[in-house]
Amino acid sequence: MSHNTFGHLFRVTTFGESHGPALGCVVDGCPPMIPLEASEIQAELDRRRPGQSRFTTQRQEPDQVKILSGVFMDERTGKQVTTGTPIALMIENVDQRSKDYSEIKNSYRPGHADFTYDVKYGIRDYRGGGRSSARETAARVAAGAVARKVLSGVTIRGALVQMGPHAIDRGNWDWDEVSRNPFFCPDAKAAEFFAEYLDGLRKAGSSIGAVIEVVAEGVPAGLGAPLYGKLDSDLAAAMMSINAVKGVEIGEGFAAAALRGEENADEMRPGNQGAPTFLSNHAGGVLGGISTGQPVVCRFAVKPTSSILTPRASVTRTGAEADVMTKGRHDPCVGIRAVPVGEAMMACVLADHLLRHRGQVGQGASWPFEG
Amino acid sequence: MSHNTFGHLFRVTTFGESHGPALGCVVDGCPPMIPLEASEIQAELDRRRPGQSRFTTQRQEPDQVKILSGVFMDERTGKQVTTGTPIALMIENVDQRSKDYSEIKNSYRPGHADFTYDVKYGIRDYRGGGRSSARETAARVAAGAVARKVLSGVTIRGALVQMGPHAIDRGNWDWDEVSRNPFFCPDAKAAEFFAEYLDGLRKAGSSIGAVIEVVAEGVPAGLGAPLYGKLDSDLAAAMMSINAVKGVEIGEGFAAAALRGEENADEMRPGNQGAPTFLSNHAGGVLGGISTGQPVVCRFAVKPTSSILTPRASVTRTGAEADVMTKGRHDPCVGIRAVPVGEAMMACVLADHLLRHRGQVGQGASWPFEG
Amino acid sequence: MSHNTFGHLFRVTTFGESHGPALGCVVDGCPPMIPLEASEIQAELDRRRPGQSRFTTQRQEPDQVKILSGVFMDERTGKQVTTGTPIALMIENVDQRSKDYSEIKNSYRPGHADFTYDVKYGIRDYRGGGRSSARETAARVAAGAVARKVLSGVTIRGALVQMGPHAIDRGNWDWDEVSRNPFFCPDAKAAEFFAEYLDGLRKAGSSIGAVIEVVAEGVPAGLGAPLYGKLDSDLAAAMMSINAVKGVEIGEGFAAAALRGEENADEMRPGNQGAPTFLSNHAGGVLGGISTGQPVVCRFAVKPTSSILTPRASVTRTGAEADVMTKGRHDPCVGIRAVPVGEAMMACVLADHLLRHRGQVGQGASWPFEG
Amino acid sequence: MSHNTFGHLFRVTTFGESHGPALGCVVDGCPPMIPLEASEIQAELDRRRPGQSRFTTQRQEPDQVKILSGVFMDERTGKQVTTGTPIALMIENVDQRSKDYSEIKNSYRPGHADFTYDVKYGIRDYRGGGRSSARETAARVAAGAVARKVLSGVTIRGALVQMGPHAIDRGNWDWDEVSRNPFFCPDAKAAEFFAEYLDGLRKAGSSIGAVIEVVAEGVPAGLGAPLYGKLDSDLAAAMMSINAVKGVEIGEGFAAAALRGEENADEMRPGNQGAPTFLSNHAGGVLGGISTGQPVVCRFAVKPTSSILTPRASVTRTGAEADVMTKGRHDPCVGIRAVPVGEAMMACVLADHLLRHRGQVGQGASWPFEG
Repeated sequence: MSHNTFGHLFRVTTFGESHGPALGCVVDGCPPMIPLEASEIQAELDRRRPGQSRFTTQRQEPDQVKILSGVFMDERTGKQVTTGTPIALMIENVDQRSKDYSEIKNSYRPGHADFTYDVKYGIRDYRGGGRSSARETAARVAAGAVARKVLSGVTIRGALVQMGPHAIDRGNWDWDEVSRNPFFCPDAKAAEFFAEYLDGLRKAGSSIGAVIEVVAEGVPAGLGAPLYGKLDSDLAAAMMSINAVKGVEIGEGFAAAALRGEENADEMRPGNQGAPTFLSNHAGGVLGGISTGQPVVCRFAVKPTSSILTPRASVTRTGAEADVMTKGRHDPCVGIRAVPVGEAMMACVLADHLLRHRGQVGQGASWPFEG
Repeated sequence: MSHNTFGHLFRVTTFGESHGPALGCVVDGCPPMIPLEASEIQAELDRRRPGQSRFTTQRQEPDQVKILSGVFMDERTGKQVTTGTPIALMIENVDQRSKDYSEIKNSYRPGHADFTYDVKYGIRDYRGGGRSSARETAARVAAGAVARKVLSGVTIRGALVQMGPHAIDRGNWDWDEVSRNPFFCPDAKAAEFFAEYLDGLRKAGSSIGAVIEVVAEGVPAGLGAPLYGKLDSDLAAAMMSINAVKGVEIGEGFAAAALRGEENADEMRPGNQGAPTFLSNHAGGVLGGISTGQPVVCRFAVKPTSSILTPRASVTRTGAEADVMTKGRHDPCVGIRAVPVGEAMMACVLADHLLRHRGQVGQGASWPFEG
Repeated sequence: MSHNTFGHLFRVTTFGESHGPALGCVVDGCPPMIPLEASEIQAELDRRRPGQSRFTTQRQEPDQVKILSGVFMDERTGKQVTTGTPIALMIENVDQRSKDYSEIKNSYRPGHADFTYDVKYGIRDYRGGGRSSARETAARVAAGAVARKVLSGVTIRGALVQMGPHAIDRGNWDWDEVSRNPFFCPDAKAAEFFAEYLDGLRKAGSSIGAVIEVVAEGVPAGLGAPLYGKLDSDLAAAMMSINAVKGVEIGEGFAAAALRGEENADEMRPGNQGAPTFLSNHAGGVLGGISTGQPVVCRFAVKPTSSILTPRASVTRTGAEADVMTKGRHDPCVGIRAVPVGEAMMACVLADHLLRHRGQVGQGASWPFEG
Repeated sequence: MSHNTFGHLFRVTTFGESHGPALGCVVDGCPPMIPLEASEIQAELDRRRPGQSRFTTQRQEPDQVKILSGVFMDERTGKQVTTGTPIALMIENVDQRSKDYSEIKNSYRPGHADFTYDVKYGIRDYRGGGRSSARETAARVAAGAVARKVLSGVTIRGALVQMGPHAIDRGNWDWDEVSRNPFFCPDAKAAEFFAEYLDGLRKAGSSIGAVIEVVAEGVPAGLGAPLYGKLDSDLAAAMMSINAVKGVEIGEGFAAAALRGEENADEMRPGNQGAPTFLSNHAGGVLGGISTGQPVVCRFAVKPTSSILTPRASVTRTGAEADVMTKGRHDPCVGIRAVPVGEAMMACVLADHLLRHRGQVGQGASWPFEG
């Protein structure tokens, strides 16, 4: 069954294909009375927008968002606010370049969803990848911009921390750097290297994978819940649902497998703001599926773009052999533009869990408990 | 909000705490007319049962399952079958050793869910970890045994592929070996090493992490769906919901980030059974969130057990300093018993997606398409 | 929490306010390869469209639907078909008459949702009733048109069977008559009477209630399921969610309370098409929440429009006394246009249950069973 | 697809058949720190328990409930409280009288779910009606007892207001009378009449329908939400899911169809407790799907028990003719014991909506708004 809704209380339903008239989403369950302007959503969309450097696809899409419902002018403040009813957001597709689709229409590009859509549904919109195109992530970023408004006091930032086999130097981490280079890279030196590295790959008609890290600070302790509504379980689903993602980890992640209990335990000491002070954050801000009050840290691996100029062995719809190469516009490292998408998914998950927690528990307990 | 239900059409709701009267689950949506005996469920539970070697907790629990509903004798065949109504499964707790809980009742064990449950709910059942105990996974394994019956033709097997920093040698992989050693390890030589290695850790009162791999063979192409009901997205949520799991990957996983497009693309050639022949499986059997017909390969990282004998800095419920060490029974490598749990989650996700696919699409398309 | 999604496998999410830029819906889970043209949806919308007679609101809305996603040309047949991905439908609002809203903005119209939206959300889009306007039902009708395409072999028809205290004469029932009068009334004689009756009420600035009956023929036996997914339970929710509906009944409905067991039992005799022949249909086609194969019969009561010219006692947002009368365009009998809406909801519920049944059970059992 | 879960945040999953080992439910999402004793649940179960008068089934079931999980002793107060984790409740079946089922095993009782379960699933537990038995409602009443604890300040009471064609005299309404007669009837005089009336029907081996009214007082304004999560929509689903229910109405219900707008509008005047004073309650406490603060009034019609001594024409599993009469224990008016069940469903729906509202909106707006 198809399932294009994400979230439980803060629910996002997306629609649209790469080359259809429009894509967008319906954000349902957003609390009322939250100031919300289209420009705030636009600002997030602009960070993800294609065609902003030579390192991303050259498709020119303004990605202008329209709010179709769910907001109204609050005459007491003169601000446009949410009303508690569904917020529909629409982005019209503009640059659906007319081209010859005869090759991808009849053959399956290796690593793409061409074959699986066809075998599942018996038909697919092959233009630009149809529903499986990363263009859908524009709708996620728009929804995430609404989610951010719900999460007052929470800061969500993402960064590219590895490109191909090259990890950044964490000692150079500078959040301000992220907006200064076209890679969302917090290490200025690594960014310089990536520019050269990616130029080489791009010119070779190749592509490369990446690892993205998203960090949410200011998340209150207590979000998430046993056992299938764990915060980290929902984060894993959210990140793995992004195009081309093949792995997700929280905190220490796979490295935790190599640690001993003494090394991995995050020791605590009395704090002074309703949460203990943790002396480390191997847990990535989540214990037992519930947030600890520390930064929530999530990483995900993005595979290399499957659209490459090197011909690959494949088959046609009718079962014949074919060699496929993908001409045209593409992102040589699709992981780059996944940074704002990962942030958006983190925002949606946290907003959902904030409302869930408030629903079941209200304000929650006040730690420390009295003696 | 609490959420103890997993799955959409094949839905599993679990209940129970480590030291309460019983734990169990309700499996809703199971198709009717499937032969099902308690002994089949028991066989799976016995694989996960504690106290079977010196390498797992010494708690003695027979884990006897009772089927409370949802089955009936089919007089035409003389077999007990599912009826399409909810299947309730109950496992009574037997070995709730009476002990002095005063330490963990008032202090938070680092790496455990003690603090987060308390701060979220204002109360927690501290006996043996309560709801956050891995004992709950018995209910998952029971549900998974039902899911396996739904998945006729699909083989699901799990294995421990890394303990601490020590990965197995994949050249030695032998599925038959998995049932011959207490580690579910497919590499006999590695298993020998792990025995000695874990003895050392156990005697030191320490613990260690692990990586588990679960492989499903015989999965038909076409399961999963855009975009938030992707097969890999649901697998990620499923595995991340298991106690102590900190990372999940599909196919090449995090290693895909280091690959170029040419390396990562799984080339295809015409096959002869409704699916092309793939020349590799970097994708782990999933493209665009939909199964390709290749083996579905999922790995997850389990952190080291937080219950260790070395004292760690912590705090009390009332906000004072405390040093905590965990005496008593525990698994020095909780990853070991996570193997049958991972298999169970894989089975539940696949059963769910099989029903979803049948609901939306019916039989699906027959590839190759005619000319 | 807000919840603007209806259905489980065939899922409809609606959005939009009476006077916003657009309203519409996302239909998710529709099976692929179903021919679908905008004109087919338009035909249903045209039946519900306002301003077609003097007996409905004079607001002029063309209600032109646009399909934004989820369809594609099938080159094998030359027909546009569904692709299995979400179908977004949009209807732009055109006739949002600019007017003075100062009265309803500050006061609560008795019988309207003005007060409850305000007290729940702290804000409401008061223009034309905002989200609580019956304009939203256009989105339902559009979704229902898609659902009808899923239900091949099922005929769904609705009729107005009572206006005010005046029930039609069931002896005069003629389905063809329904499209010949502006009341969707199957009794030509009653329709004549209703014209005069409603003229009187309309001129008096009053309004009146109605009862609508929706009948689905050709529904296969076996749809619906225990116990909270009963077909009749979902129908009740669906109909009660329509604006102004205050009661729902299946088959004999409230009249069943007055019957004895012998009178109410629908006797059966052997049939010849996978279902017995029923000698009556007090059950309205549903037993134990599952369809019997007989026509599914559902009725619902619609209260009189609350927008009337007679002043009524009320209060303002600031808690002062106010007398409110509603000028402007309105339906004197909102039940009339509820007929196509009720049909649409019946279609959505049945399509959902058809997919649910196929998912859990597949083809289901073939009755009669062999000896 | 099967669906044995009801509710969204306060979620109840029930299981069990009439003659299986046990039935019960899992209540998930209940807020923590609510005092809860098994005796409180037992008190509600005792009101519904069979065999308490000659007017209900003579099956002897103690209906003793066991709490299997989700509660813990709060040492600060010495009271057992909810912990926020799933509350599993189990009731063992005791009086599964051994009898000859050969008749109902092979034939379909008219008006029963025998045929529909068989045709849907290919098998059914015919003993006592299996899953379709009203015995399942014990689990609902148990869950409702938990829901009542969530709804502090809300009073939920039910009453039988019609038996067969005989409505009570509302002028005689006395809530205290409800617990004094075996019919849950608030009109003492009508209760006397019903005793004689039902004796006659019972002796004749017949049965009769009834109408039940459930009223919730103290419900805060603002619960419920557009558009498919309307409070009245969920109430309709809840009541229609009870065995034998064929109609549901809110407030004026079907009678509203006969009213003019002036008659049906509930006028308001300024009140003094965060809500206006309503001068009538035709709406039954719900406007636009959201509670007004007035009593929520819901009625439902229960058909006559289908188990009667008069032979009725039917068919066998193999398609032959059969005449069926139902011997053995049954409720001559199943509507009587539906009273506590209706209360329980009202409680579950309101608890769910209370949590939903708190999740999306928090405390909500404070009416009246400042000038």
